Amino acid sequence: MVVPEELPIPNIPNSPLPTVVIVGGGFAGLKLARKLKSAPYQVILLDKHNYHQFQPLFYQVATAGLEPSAISFPLRKIFHNSPNTIFRMAEVQSFDSEENRLYTNIGYIDYDFLVLAMGADTNYFGNKSIEYYSVPMKTVSEALFVRNKIISNYERAINIELQENRKSLMNVVIVGGGPTGVELAGAMAELRNNVLPKDYPELNFDNMKVVLIEAGPKLLGAMSKESQDHSLQYLEELGVEVMLDTKVQDYDGEEVHIEGKESISTQTLLWAAGIKPNYIEGLSKEHYAPNGRIFVNEFNEVSGLEGIYVLGDVALQTEENFPKGHPQVAQVALQQAENLGKNLINISKGQEMKAFHYKDLGSMATVGRKRAVVDLPFMKFQGMMAWLTWLFVHLMAILGVKNKLFIFIDWAWNYLSFDSSLRLLIKPKYVRASERKELIEEK
Amino acid sequence: MVVPEELPIPNIPNSPLPTVVIVGGGFAGLKLARKLKSAPYQVILLDKHNYHQFQPLFYQVATAGLEPSAISFPLRKIFHNSPNTIFRMAEVQSFDSEENRLYTNIGYIDYDFLVLAMGADTNYFGNKSIEYYSVPMKTVSEALFVRNKIISNYERAINIELQENRKSLMNVVIVGGGPTGVELAGAMAELRNNVLPKDYPELNFDNMKVVLIEAGPKLLGAMSKESQDHSLQYLEELGVEVMLDTKVQDYDGEEVHIEGKESISTQTLLWAAGIKPNYIEGLSKEHYAPNGRIFVNEFNEVSGLEGIYVLGDVALQTEENFPKGHPQVAQVALQQAENLGKNLINISKGQEMKAFHYKDLGSMATVGRKRAVVDLPFMKFQGMMAWLTWLFVHLMAILGVKNKLFIFIDWAWNYLSFDSSLRLLIKPKYVRASERKELIEEK
Repeated sequence: MVVPEELPIPNIPNSPLPTVVIVGGGFAGLKLARKLKSAPYQVILLDKHNYHQFQPLFYQVATAGLEPSAISFPLRKIFHNSPNTIFRMAEVQSFDSEENRLYTNIGYIDYDFLVLAMGADTNYFGNKSIEYYSVPMKTVSEALFVRNKIISNYERAINIELQENRKSLMNVVIVGGGPTGVELAGAMAELRNNVLPKDYPELNFDNMKVVLIEAGPKLLGAMSKESQDHSLQYLEELGVEVMLDTKVQDYDGEEVHIEGKESISTQTLLWAAGIKPNYIEGLSKEHYAPNGRIFVNEFNEVSGLEGIYVLGDVALQTEENFPKGHPQVAQVALQQAENLGKNLINISKGQEMKAFHYKDLGSMATVGRKRAVVDLPFMKFQGMMAWLTWLFVHLMAILGVKNKLFIFIDWAWNYLSFDSSLRLLIKPKYVRASERKELIEEK
Repeated sequence: MVVPEELPIPNIPNSPLPTVVIVGGGFAGLKLARKLKSAPYQVILLDKHNYHQFQPLFYQVATAGLEPSAISFPLRKIFHNSPNTIFRMAEVQSFDSEENRLYTNIGYIDYDFLVLAMGADTNYFGNKSIEYYSVPMKTVSEALFVRNKIISNYERAINIELQENRKSLMNVVIVGGGPTGVELAGAMAELRNNVLPKDYPELNFDNMKVVLIEAGPKLLGAMSKESQDHSLQYLEELGVEVMLDTKVQDYDGEEVHIEGKESISTQTLLWAAGIKPNYIEGLSKEHYAPNGRIFVNEFNEVSGLEGIYVLGDVALQTEENFPKGHPQVAQVALQQAENLGKNLINISKGQEMKAFHYKDLGSMATVGRKRAVVDLPFMKFQGMMAWLTWLFVHLMAILGVKNKLFIFIDWAWNYLSFDSSLRLLIKPKYVRASERKELIEEK
């Protein structure tokens, strides 16, 4: 166990109000903090970044369609006029449910209510070699890394004489047939079809494979059969090689080894095959399901621990229609946060809490321009209309008028020009002088 | 000397045309390459980045007003329809003027004409300790680093109990009273006056010093007295502490030591005090001035070496009005490139070359909203009109309609809201798994 910080987090204003500490500024944590803006609580929001990340559009950052800033929003800005809400950039370490104390890298804090909304990270299912060589997509920095990697692979490929030797730099293999994998594969194929050949006229893009590998028999497992079939058809129209019922065995940075099939050469293996909840020390074993989610009751409260709540990807709550828990998607996180917000307000008024019931509002995924699939509770549709629906829903969900405006212009521009213009290899190239070796040696 | 690459750069298409190799895609190199788009030459443009950087706006990236992508432009995109222009991302190492061969990290290339337009880097005047601890501003990555550093300093400052101990995190010291220093100081003061207090209500911003140190007796040394006086007045109105005739002696990462004055606590020393030309091996000592610039004749040709040209910050060319060479500014680089472009076209037609004469079109600097200074050959003005002129001229100079549009919206937004919204600490936090220690150890 990490040694806990022995001092309280400094400069937290004294407040007579009960303290709600929220761990994580993702969909659930941010929604709850906003919901409690005018409630009689002191709300302390903690996140390891100083911004909220809009995960559904990471894949567009990776494929040079959007800037990281367009889908990130400074958390402090959201609470400019909320004196009861305090933000701290911090990494949580553990909590003591008897003392009501949370330990972080900047000190400890005492809570009345603790809300764990830490989200999930990439799951490599124990394969260290894949973890070592593949690239995940769970933060905006990782998405930017994917973009930089692909561009620099092409700048390297162009300097290789034999086409045979360029293969592993040009091919892109994506593992995982969920929305991230499907959207990434579609966008990558469009880059290959429309954008990259203009940038690299010396290279033959017929040799660039975009492969999507899924272990199960279907893409978009949680969606309708119509959506599954259409998304497969769309990907094939764009020239993506889709491999269903296919298991990746291993990856050594050069070759993807596949069960029962020929291996594929690539230096770019994008891993979107699974997630695992982020972990915080403080609960005993019986609170965890084998997949790392924390059991909660119908109020999102950890069973047997009053005042400790879990939201979103980390929470495992069963309902009649969800005997294995809710899907780990944004909609669930948002609805749980909304419900918990109401319940905390009810508590402050001495009223009863309401049980959470998930209402599936539908789901959607986009494969490429004019190619998307939408499942609503009352209807399903695909193609152009689905694509426009997808664009509209995501634009509305993005925080901030300016971000909306910039994304709208970016999308309109990319649509009209068939060209995403953000192919900039702006790498963290600058190494602070104090970390530069030659200077350290000279000193 | 670096061992030269022994193979030619691969995949350069064969061409019967004479080859012009341009080193550097800055103002001069890019202008020349565009000028030669339809000329009877094979043009090979080399740069260590895959994008052109618009240096005059680096300071706005550093102060969270603009995104790096807004002031960067992919070089490949510019030459989509120019089959005679080839771009390669490469670092040059040396050249052999007898063999007409340029060596780079991706191989060598034989040229008929070589154009050196490598620009300049930060000059620390030999002070290793300042180089070690201070932060430069000569690339867009460095500008982004400044932004991240300032934001993370504030996130750290808020966790420090005693105001006294927060000082070095909050203070910002800028060295160099040229346009970069003045513009940076003004923008930093505006951040302190308008933006940061909203983000960090717990901190007292009266304690944040913004200090601008200049060794000479005047700010904006190259401009008119009116502009110098006004810029000083504007900075003081914004609350910048301007120290003229002041020399920084040393810096240890915590304290700036100043000749004959009290030292200043800061962890953020921004160094904009001087530049030195980038160096390439291949010329003998007599070609260099003591400041590292390369002597050229009136055609920008290296004296005594036919077919080797130098443009921009690296070139040292004297004229009647410029006995010590032209100022190292964008205007000179652009005009020299224009002239050399014409001359190379003339050469291809068997016509005479024209001598270069610099025409000073004026200069300008902006200190803050509605506060700028403009010197034109026929008039000088300051204030609101100068500010609008500055905005218009820079907007027009930016490459690409989309970049213009985004910058325009950003500026309009910041103007109306008194709030630059890009306060995102999107750091290169993601470390590729293969570089992560714990994984390497486990493997």
